[in-house]
Amino acid sequence: MTAPILRPDGLCQVGFIVKDIEASARKYAETFGLPKPPIIQTPGFEKAKTTVAGTPSEATAKLAFFRMGQLTIELIEPDEKPSVWRDFLDKNGEGVHHIAFHVDDTNATENALAKYGIKTEQQGLYTDASGMYTYVDSTAQLGVMVELLESFPKA
Amino acid sequence: MTAPILRPDGLCQVGFIVKDIEASARKYAETFGLPKPPIIQTPGFEKAKTTVAGTPSEATAKLAFFRMGQLTIELIEPDEKPSVWRDFLDKNGEGVHHIAFHVDDTNATENALAKYGIKTEQQGLYTDASGMYTYVDSTAQLGVMVELLESFPKA
Repeated sequence: MTAPILRPDGLCQVGFIVKDIEASARKYAETFGLPKPPIIQTPGFEKAKTTVAGTPSEATAKLAFFRMGQLTIELIEPDEKPSVWRDFLDKNGEGVHHIAFHVDDTNATENALAKYGIKTEQQGLYTDASGMYTYVDSTAQLGVMVELLESFPKA
Repeated sequence: MTAPILRPDGLCQVGFIVKDIEASARKYAETFGLPKPPIIQTPGFEKAKTTVAGTPSEATAKLAFFRMGQLTIELIEPDEKPSVWRDFLDKNGEGVHHIAFHVDDTNATENALAKYGIKTEQQGLYTDASGMYTYVDSTAQLGVMVELLESFPKA
């Protein structure tokens, strides 16, 4: 038992890829008795600084979030440009795409995961630039992609 | 917005199907800096009262649980007999199998979900008979199977 790479209590999100976010958000809202959340359009490279496999990317997505206690459920409708989201939809169709963890230091976490052969696939800023996300491909090791979520300190 | 079929704060588990629970439990334990949990062998029909598609079944599984705040991560290694677990492994390989919710009344929840075309696939008792689980096939509606977990009142 060593220091955790991912803090167990940092588990904060389950992310789903969907084809039609309006339809899926409505179905989830009905099932959970929650209001349909707003649909958020992520910005292009200039604002989001998205990289896919290390290369700047204009890939965007539509997002919707449902708060479920400690967790959020995130729905993601990718656009047509290459991204981890689009790749998942093309290969698997709709389904669970990732589980996300809060991290304090993205770089340190990436380095620790790299020792297990878990590599960064996509990175970018939150829509409001208050933090950054990093998808690492842990599918072979953990059966699902992991997302690292780092909130930047507030000024 | 109506009364929820599944309480948002009842979300309590993400379940993964694995081929080799010893190897997977070791990898998860390393990643999360947690001790490797005990592997639990579920009992056969006489004790677990397992039904698959309404029919009594001797299907069993090996289970391991990691507590992650509000959530547990459950690893499931199915045996060869037909079950929702075996079916998932044969069709999809390893991956996220279900998200689970605490429910107060399994029957009432099944009836409410049936109105959305979401049907019960497998049911059984917890290993210690302190409650029951029910897998409903919500894959078409929610992109993942849902498990209902009901704890029986203590005497």
